[in-house]
Amino acid sequence: MKKRIAIIGAGPSGLAQLRAFQSAKQKGADIPEIVCFEKQSNWGGLWNYTWRTGLDEYGEPVHGSMYRYLWSNGPKEGLEFADYSFEEHFGKQIASYPPRAVLFDYIEGRVKKAGVRDWIRFSTAVRNVSYDIDRAKFTVTVKDLPKDYMYSEEFDHVIVASGHFSTPNVPEFQGMASFNGRVLHAHDFRDAREFAGQDILIVGTSYSAEDIGSQCWKYGCKSVTVSYRTAPMGFKWPSNWKEVPIITKLEGKTATFKDGTTANADALILCTGYQHHFPFLPDELRLKTRNRLAAADLYKGVAYVHNPRLFYLGMQDQWFTFNMFDAQAWWVRDAIMGRIAIPADKKVLLKDVTDRVAGEDAGADAHDAIHYQGEYVKELIAETDYPSFDVDGACEAFFEWKEHKKKDIMGFRNNAYKSVITGTMAPMHHTPWKDALDDSMESYLRN
Amino acid sequence: MKKRIAIIGAGPSGLAQLRAFQSAKQKGADIPEIVCFEKQSNWGGLWNYTWRTGLDEYGEPVHGSMYRYLWSNGPKEGLEFADYSFEEHFGKQIASYPPRAVLFDYIEGRVKKAGVRDWIRFSTAVRNVSYDIDRAKFTVTVKDLPKDYMYSEEFDHVIVASGHFSTPNVPEFQGMASFNGRVLHAHDFRDAREFAGQDILIVGTSYSAEDIGSQCWKYGCKSVTVSYRTAPMGFKWPSNWKEVPIITKLEGKTATFKDGTTANADALILCTGYQHHFPFLPDELRLKTRNRLAAADLYKGVAYVHNPRLFYLGMQDQWFTFNMFDAQAWWVRDAIMGRIAIPADKKVLLKDVTDRVAGEDAGADAHDAIHYQGEYVKELIAETDYPSFDVDGACEAFFEWKEHKKKDIMGFRNNAYKSVITGTMAPMHHTPWKDALDDSMESYLRN
Repeated sequence: MKKRIAIIGAGPSGLAQLRAFQSAKQKGADIPEIVCFEKQSNWGGLWNYTWRTGLDEYGEPVHGSMYRYLWSNGPKEGLEFADYSFEEHFGKQIASYPPRAVLFDYIEGRVKKAGVRDWIRFSTAVRNVSYDIDRAKFTVTVKDLPKDYMYSEEFDHVIVASGHFSTPNVPEFQGMASFNGRVLHAHDFRDAREFAGQDILIVGTSYSAEDIGSQCWKYGCKSVTVSYRTAPMGFKWPSNWKEVPIITKLEGKTATFKDGTTANADALILCTGYQHHFPFLPDELRLKTRNRLAAADLYKGVAYVHNPRLFYLGMQDQWFTFNMFDAQAWWVRDAIMGRIAIPADKKVLLKDVTDRVAGEDAGADAHDAIHYQGEYVKELIAETDYPSFDVDGACEAFFEWKEHKKKDIMGFRNNAYKSVITGTMAPMHHTPWKDALDDSMESYLRN
Repeated sequence: MKKRIAIIGAGPSGLAQLRAFQSAKQKGADIPEIVCFEKQSNWGGLWNYTWRTGLDEYGEPVHGSMYRYLWSNGPKEGLEFADYSFEEHFGKQIASYPPRAVLFDYIEGRVKKAGVRDWIRFSTAVRNVSYDIDRAKFTVTVKDLPKDYMYSEEFDHVIVASGHFSTPNVPEFQGMASFNGRVLHAHDFRDAREFAGQDILIVGTSYSAEDIGSQCWKYGCKSVTVSYRTAPMGFKWPSNWKEVPIITKLEGKTATFKDGTTANADALILCTGYQHHFPFLPDELRLKTRNRLAAADLYKGVAYVHNPRLFYLGMQDQWFTFNMFDAQAWWVRDAIMGRIAIPADKKVLLKDVTDRVAGEDAGADAHDAIHYQGEYVKELIAETDYPSFDVDGACEAFFEWKEHKKKDIMGFRNNAYKSVITGTMAPMHHTPWKDALDDSMESYLRN
């Protein structure tokens, strides 16, 4: 009997896993039977844009946190697939910060070429996973959403690739229940034009705060106020943008901050991060981790130490993305196919996690963090046949990117970097980001 | 061994069930052990207002569809508890259309008096229910949200009282993915002041459409356009309000309707109803019904015909609310306690459903529907010790209410009706609804 593998989610991580198995098959290996369950009606995960917020047409929580006009917030040279370059996909080199539609097309191109769509059961939500120790089998219970019926199947391995940027972390501030402006989490942000002419108050200092604020600025909001808990982002913001301490009180449409200053807010946008949330997993299989580079309880960052037949992809905080998911997916594939042995001694697994935590904690800054994750990607790639690439070169692109942001936060996307896969330089984009209001693929590729 | 009963939800229906059992206990009966699971941290169901939308602090779908400034959209004389009058609770008769906070206080007053709070496990989401035919036991699996752990317990009966106004029904219109205004379902509507000065486009013609439009009008929106699929509501609307055929296209911020006319829309509010949604129930226990007075598959409107140890409360479309939930809860209690026999022959159960459907279908209009549901309430009450009350009198209040709405849609809440429980007339409210911007309990009770 062939092994049966369940993959939960057909976003960048799940698709990397499908491609990893298909790649082995293409090279003549006898691969297990693969079933990928995807809640949405199409693949691409977060890159599959939906106008829906809250609950979807089947009453399921909307997966997407994607908004209109999003351009990659890091250079594409840091995330390029080693087995499928941008040049292969687009027939030419393209500029370095593609909008969503362009990246979606790129992600899709590889898996279309691989021909793995039939392995995915779309519009199918996973409801429960259980594990039978005696039989060493997982039972996965799912709901076919359009047909409104549930069924269960058995698997030898489960790979959780459902992401961790879908379930918002939503804090409460005093006065929120009677605040007269709009309140939303970044997860439900869709179109910056909704906020044209408005005073926007953002809470948070990470990527969502920086980018949603920038979007609102670009599409004509009146002002941006960003409230931080610990420290401001400190970029050179436009003149109608300021950073203030944490909110202490909301009253009417006025926010008061810890330093006693106030601001008017038509909308309060909570860019306060996401939770690792797996409502379909029982306690003994459920990953509980903070959003960090060395995720808790994952041997090699992927195998669940309390049951290493269960894998998690992409659960780390991320500098590297698509290419790291690939490195993980190839490694998981080889662990499942017996090409890599996972130590039987749980102590070894736990020590691996402890060492990774210590390694991350030893770093001092973002530079160290990028380097740390680059080394992790190299470590995994070295153990599989995933095409080796210049990871240090990708790190260099990240370092340059950080500098470009420091220099010009509303202009960093106008820079170009060199592909570490094909060695070619990206062209300069035809229009500065702040003036490029049309985010369509057609417009972006007109270089 | 005592029977064990699980109640899912501590909103008006679940609380009615707790009160029903407590009432029997108070009269000396030996009642089963009751465990009520409530996802929210407080009781009251939809009447427990939250500013949150989408997912809550634990990543669970937000139950509440309640918005600020909501006043009852029907006279309180149609929903008064027969065992706990408004006069008993407030120490005096109050005006007929109380705002949310007043109704919440009233609901809470009865169950505080009954002392049933200890029967409820708050912040506990039901994840799964299964039924073992051989042992005639239900296993209910829940998640303690703050403690982040799951557990299961066995029960002899399960009563589903989780409501059916929490999971939005959200249709798609052409151009929605690129529409530049805000899109939200009524479920996520919170504060009408967010829409002050805006052009509001509403889809739907039922209570949400009527009331959310009225709220936005009251709190200063620029215009209200209501798009209907079948027929307009036809009330005498204010001058900045119009009704138009269904949307055929959205482009930029412009909506085009079936008659070729267009309107600007800063926000598109989908008042398109709710789904009966029970993600915690397997196919064989899950009610599938349209929102109608004679719900599918429920004997006497409460016992699930495919497994009559399982009950559903309040799953009907509703004219009667709190008092109907009471009638149902008392009946379910007596069925569980063996005071009422549910026929063993499934054919009898199915015929009961068929007859109810035929009864509803025989009605021609709202008047017939109100009368039909009044007769249903009477039928249940006659079989238990729930205090008999003048149901026909409550119907009369509904008939008057309909006339008052026809006469003055923005003024119907200025009328007063006679309590069918205490026989006293409600006072006129001190301020016309359209001018009463403060919806606090303190303000409302100042009569």
